[in-house]
Amino acid sequence: MTFNNSDPVSVMFAGIEMDGIYINRSGEHAIVKLSSGYNICVPESFCSPKEKTAPAEKPVVSPLKQDASLPLLSIISTGGTIASTVDYRTGAVSSKFTAEDILRSIPELAGIARYHTLQPFQVLSENMNPAMWQELARTIHDEILKGAQGIIVTHGTDTMLYSAAAVSFMLNTPVPIVFVGAQRSADRPSSDNAMNAICSAKAAVSDLGEVVVCMHATESDTTCALHRATRVRKNHTSRRDAFQSIGREPVGGIGYPDGTVVLANDAVLRGTEELRLSDNLASNCGLIQYYPGMNPAVIDAFKGYKGLVIAGTGLGHVGTDCIKSITGLTTSGTTVVMTSQCQAGSVCDRVYETGRDLLDAGVIEGGSMLPEVALVKLMWVLGNATRKEDIKRLMQTNLKGELAYDLWRYA
Amino acid sequence: MTFNNSDPVSVMFAGIEMDGIYINRSGEHAIVKLSSGYNICVPESFCSPKEKTAPAEKPVVSPLKQDASLPLLSIISTGGTIASTVDYRTGAVSSKFTAEDILRSIPELAGIARYHTLQPFQVLSENMNPAMWQELARTIHDEILKGAQGIIVTHGTDTMLYSAAAVSFMLNTPVPIVFVGAQRSADRPSSDNAMNAICSAKAAVSDLGEVVVCMHATESDTTCALHRATRVRKNHTSRRDAFQSIGREPVGGIGYPDGTVVLANDAVLRGTEELRLSDNLASNCGLIQYYPGMNPAVIDAFKGYKGLVIAGTGLGHVGTDCIKSITGLTTSGTTVVMTSQCQAGSVCDRVYETGRDLLDAGVIEGGSMLPEVALVKLMWVLGNATRKEDIKRLMQTNLKGELAYDLWRYA
Repeated sequence: MTFNNSDPVSVMFAGIEMDGIYINRSGEHAIVKLSSGYNICVPESFCSPKEKTAPAEKPVVSPLKQDASLPLLSIISTGGTIASTVDYRTGAVSSKFTAEDILRSIPELAGIARYHTLQPFQVLSENMNPAMWQELARTIHDEILKGAQGIIVTHGTDTMLYSAAAVSFMLNTPVPIVFVGAQRSADRPSSDNAMNAICSAKAAVSDLGEVVVCMHATESDTTCALHRATRVRKNHTSRRDAFQSIGREPVGGIGYPDGTVVLANDAVLRGTEELRLSDNLASNCGLIQYYPGMNPAVIDAFKGYKGLVIAGTGLGHVGTDCIKSITGLTTSGTTVVMTSQCQAGSVCDRVYETGRDLLDAGVIEGGSMLPEVALVKLMWVLGNATRKEDIKRLMQTNLKGELAYDLWRYA
Repeated sequence: MTFNNSDPVSVMFAGIEMDGIYINRSGEHAIVKLSSGYNICVPESFCSPKEKTAPAEKPVVSPLKQDASLPLLSIISTGGTIASTVDYRTGAVSSKFTAEDILRSIPELAGIARYHTLQPFQVLSENMNPAMWQELARTIHDEILKGAQGIIVTHGTDTMLYSAAAVSFMLNTPVPIVFVGAQRSADRPSSDNAMNAICSAKAAVSDLGEVVVCMHATESDTTCALHRATRVRKNHTSRRDAFQSIGREPVGGIGYPDGTVVLANDAVLRGTEELRLSDNLASNCGLIQYYPGMNPAVIDAFKGYKGLVIAGTGLGHVGTDCIKSITGLTTSGTTVVMTSQCQAGSVCDRVYETGRDLLDAGVIEGGSMLPEVALVKLMWVLGNATRKEDIKRLMQTNLKGELAYDLWRYA
C-alpha cells in the first residue's frame, strides 16, 4: 500500500485506532499527523487508507480591532514555532503565520495594547545569522523611533538566545524588547504560544527597559519568566519551561492569566537607557568546545578569523598541546576568549599552571560569560573596537549583564 | 620592590592586613597564597616584605594500618585537585599526592576497607586523553581480576565525566567503579576532598555494580551524590556541588558522616555484569557546537576524521548551508552523530524540514545523549564496529544508561 502526502489514514498503534493525515516517509516509517495534533512515526504497515473528507474550512476571522487609548507595541515576526500553523493541505507545521495572524488568533492581545506588525523576514531559527541580527536591531530601532512603547519579537526557540543577546549588545533601549517563542506549535493541545504571547505583551507594556526572553517559567500555565537576554539558555529540547536563567534569577515574571508583573531589584527600568543603535558586527568569529584528545589542528583551522571563543574545561583550561596553536592564533591577530563548558561559575586562569600558560598565550578571560553570549559579544566588540587593549577591556566590562558575578576574583 | 617566589609577604587589602607567601606575578598583579589557604591576586604595591621564618615542618605521618577483615578496594590516583597538596616551598597547589598519601591524610578511610594503591599516571585532568582512558580501563580491569571488590579513581574534576564515560563503555564491571574528585584543594578550609574520598569508599564497598561519579550533592557537608557516569555534567566551575545528573536522578547517595547508602531503583547492582574489557577506541573523532553564522568550512575541517559529533540547536538542527558539508563528510566515510546543545531532552530530526534534510545527509540521531558522552561513545563504537548499520545500531542502543529516555518518539 502506497500513500501520498495529505491522504487521510487510520493508524493502529498499541491496540488503539487513531485518525490522521499521511505526511511522508522517513526510511521505513510513515509520518502521520494525528487528529490530536501530534505527529507519529510508525511502520507504514500500521496505516490503512480512509475516505477523503472535504478539507476543514479555515476558521472565520474577525477584523482586527485596535483600542487607540492603549500603548503602542510593535510585533516583529521572524518565524519559528510561535508563528506556526497547520498547513491544511499537508497536515505539516509551517511557520508562515504573520504577526497579524498572531494578533487575530489570540484575541486577548487586543485588550493589552494596540499593535504595529512587521515581518522583516521569516526563517527557521537555525537559519538566523549575524546579518539578520543586524536587520532585526535596525528594525527595532526604527520602531522605537517611530513611537513604539515596547517591542515583541516572535522568534524560533532554537537560536533565540543568540539573537536576543545580539540585539542587547547592538541597541541601548529605553523600552522593553521582549523575545518570545513557543516550544509546541499552535495545532497541539499543549501549545504554549498563546500564553507566552499574552505574557510578552504584558512585559512589553511594563516598567522594564531591557532585552528579555519571555517563556513558560514552569510546566504549568501560571507564570512566564522574563530572562535577561545575556544570561539565558534553552536547557531542554522540548519542555515548555526549557528556557532558564543561568547564574542569576530571572529579571521578572508575569502571572497568568491575571497579568501581574514582578520585576527583580536589578531589572533595568523603562527610560534608564537612551535609544542608541551601534550595529557593527565582525561576524567572522567562531566557537569551539575543548575535549580530551582534541587535535590542535582544530584550533589552527580558525586562522584568519577575527575572533574565537573557546569553551574550555573547568576554570578555563585546554590540553597543554593546544596552547601552541592558540599562541599561533593570537600572534596572527585573532582575538581568543576563554569561557567554560561548565554551565555556571566563572573562568579564572590564574590558579593552575595551564591557565597561566593560556594568559601568556594572549587569551582573554571571559569571566562568567556563557560561551555563546561571549561569541555574540566578541562579534560586537570586534565590530566596534580595533586596539587590543580596548577589545580586552570591553570583553571584560559588564556591558549588558552578561557577567553575572563580580569580576574581582579570589583564586 | 621586587619579590621572589616563596618570599613571605604582608598584604594590605580592604583595610585588612593578611600574611601570605608570594607566588609570582601575573601582568601587573602579584599572586599571593594567604595563610588561610586562599590565593589572592592584588596590585603588587599592596604587598610588603616580611621576615622569613623557618619553613613549616611536614606533619609526622603514622604508618599505614590495614584491617584484613575488611573488603579490598583499589585506589587509582590519576592526579587532580583531590590529590593536591600545598608545595611547602612555593605555596602553590601541586597535584603530586599519591594514593597512599590520600590514605594517610584521611584516617577514616582505614575503617571502611583495606586498600591497594596505584598511580598509573599523574596529570592535570585537562591533559587526559583517549590513550590514558584506555590505560585506566586496563588498570581497573587488572585490579578487579586480582580481587578488588571495588575501585576508587581519584581524578581532576575538569574532564572526569569524559573519563568516567569512557571507562563505562570499555568495561563491563561486576563491582562499583567510583570516580571521585575535589573542587577545592586540601589546603583550603572549604576543601571537599576528605568527605568526597570517604563517601567514595562507602560507595565502593556498596551493592552498586556500575561506573559512577561521587561528589558533594549540595553545598553542605551532609550527602554525596552518585551520578551515573554517562549522565553527569560539571555544571559549575567552582562550587563543591558542581556535578549534577542530567535528565535523570542520581543513581545513589551517601550520607555523611554516617555513611548510609541509598541506591535508585534502576541502579545496576554488584554482580549484574560479568567482567569484560573491550578497550579499542577510534580516538580520531571530534565535537563541534553549531552557532548562527557558522562557516561550513568549520565542518569541512573534520574531513578524514572517523567520527564527528555535532551539538546542534534544539531538536538537533544546523543552518541549512551547513548540510552540504555534512553530506561531504558522511559520503567520505565520517560517521556524523547529531546531539543537542540543549542540556536535556532528546534529538528528533523527524519534525522539521531541516532535521529531515540532516537524516537524508546520513546523520545519526543521538537521542538524549550528552554531546561529550556521544563523542566518547562514538570513539568506542568506531573502535569496535565497522559496518555502517552496526555503528548506527550501537549508537542508538542504550549500552550504559547514556540514553536517558525511551527511544520511541512522538514528533
